[in-house]
Amino acid sequence: MRLYELCGADRDLRFSPFVWRVLLALAHKGIEVERVPCRFLEKDAFAPSGSKTVPVLEDDGTWVADSWKIVRHLEDRYPDRPSLFGGAAGRALTRFVTHWADRIVLAGLFPMIAADVCDCLDEPDRSYFRSSREKRLGQDLYALREERESRLAPFRAALAPMRAQLAEQPFLCGDAPAHADYAVAGCFIWCRGVSPLEVLELDDPIHAWRERMLDLFDGLARKAKRAY
Amino acid sequence: MRLYELCGADRDLRFSPFVWRVLLALAHKGIEVERVPCRFLEKDAFAPSGSKTVPVLEDDGTWVADSWKIVRHLEDRYPDRPSLFGGAAGRALTRFVTHWADRIVLAGLFPMIAADVCDCLDEPDRSYFRSSREKRLGQDLYALREERESRLAPFRAALAPMRAQLAEQPFLCGDAPAHADYAVAGCFIWCRGVSPLEVLELDDPIHAWRERMLDLFDGLARKAKRAY
Repeated sequence: MRLYELCGADRDLRFSPFVWRVLLALAHKGIEVERVPCRFLEKDAFAPSGSKTVPVLEDDGTWVADSWKIVRHLEDRYPDRPSLFGGAAGRALTRFVTHWADRIVLAGLFPMIAADVCDCLDEPDRSYFRSSREKRLGQDLYALREERESRLAPFRAALAPMRAQLAEQPFLCGDAPAHADYAVAGCFIWCRGVSPLEVLELDDPIHAWRERMLDLFDGLARKAKRAY
Repeated sequence: MRLYELCGADRDLRFSPFVWRVLLALAHKGIEVERVPCRFLEKDAFAPSGSKTVPVLEDDGTWVADSWKIVRHLEDRYPDRPSLFGGAAGRALTRFVTHWADRIVLAGLFPMIAADVCDCLDEPDRSYFRSSREKRLGQDLYALREERESRLAPFRAALAPMRAQLAEQPFLCGDAPAHADYAVAGCFIWCRGVSPLEVLELDDPIHAWRERMLDLFDGLARKAKRAY
């Protein structure tokens, strides 16, 4: 099994939040994978998938792109391994948490750390990333970085539902982590990998949860290369 | 089994979002219940529960207060009836959705419709409600109503994770509704019961979902008395 991942100028820097979701899901299932680093504009290796973005999984001749599709593939193809969803209801609600992670956590972090992502890239990736993201946001990524401290308080406030959940139990999924945890953790691992900005306060239950996520699977995410 | 509910000046007006969560959960389980209306300041009937607020359930001598505790009680005590959570993972993630509903949906609706709630109450409930809620919000409820139109756009934007979910499947819980749907629906049924304000746009997938929720259980929520 082969996983095509995003990397920076330094090929050991693997920062994509979507790839991290898949890496944690694979570790949860106990599945070994060959990790293939690709820069933003290196798409030839996974061209057979038809996808223009990673993560892409090549599983015994089957190509699967998109982190949610990959995770569903893993759950359906390897049902005897530990479950990522805990059944049909868990799968549906994990999807809700993934949408929440995309629209609240990832979208909240992005303007704060996008310039840091830029700094991790070499040309031509840097120009591609900066122009495409500035077009999407309608703002200069480096100007956004200048004012990012002002975004911390509203970002933290928007995490209130997650904070309430983690005040009651160690993981979003209960006593043990599963894919809903990984979907959110991917965002924080991405942030930690590319940016020196600490986005969580020390006494936030989400901070303690993030520490637990970094420790999982023999410190898989904690050991990952960081940009600074 | 007896459920103590909140009611307005008109005792047939049952508007509590937390009670609605329980009513839908009871219907999902196919459990008949005697519904006992209580105004805000009528707490004697459920005093044995030790709770100062409804919903309170009296189940064959067992008193349970708090909507989340009641729903867990129903799931655990009646495991042979249709499941509200779909297993342990579903239960944990349903709790996350409930926190999201409380902090995003209910908290977003409240300043827009709190004065409408006031208008449904008789003295002494009205004075109690107005002063306690104005203290909590630090604002005049009727002044909030005057400017409520300005809150509609950010409220709708905050529903993005739910909208994304419902663009893919008919219910938050997948092909059929379960408690995560009821947890959110309670907020919208409350709003519809006390306020003439339409908070959702007609072409919003959440609007269509709300229609489906109103239709459930032979139109249980649709047939409920409204204030205007």
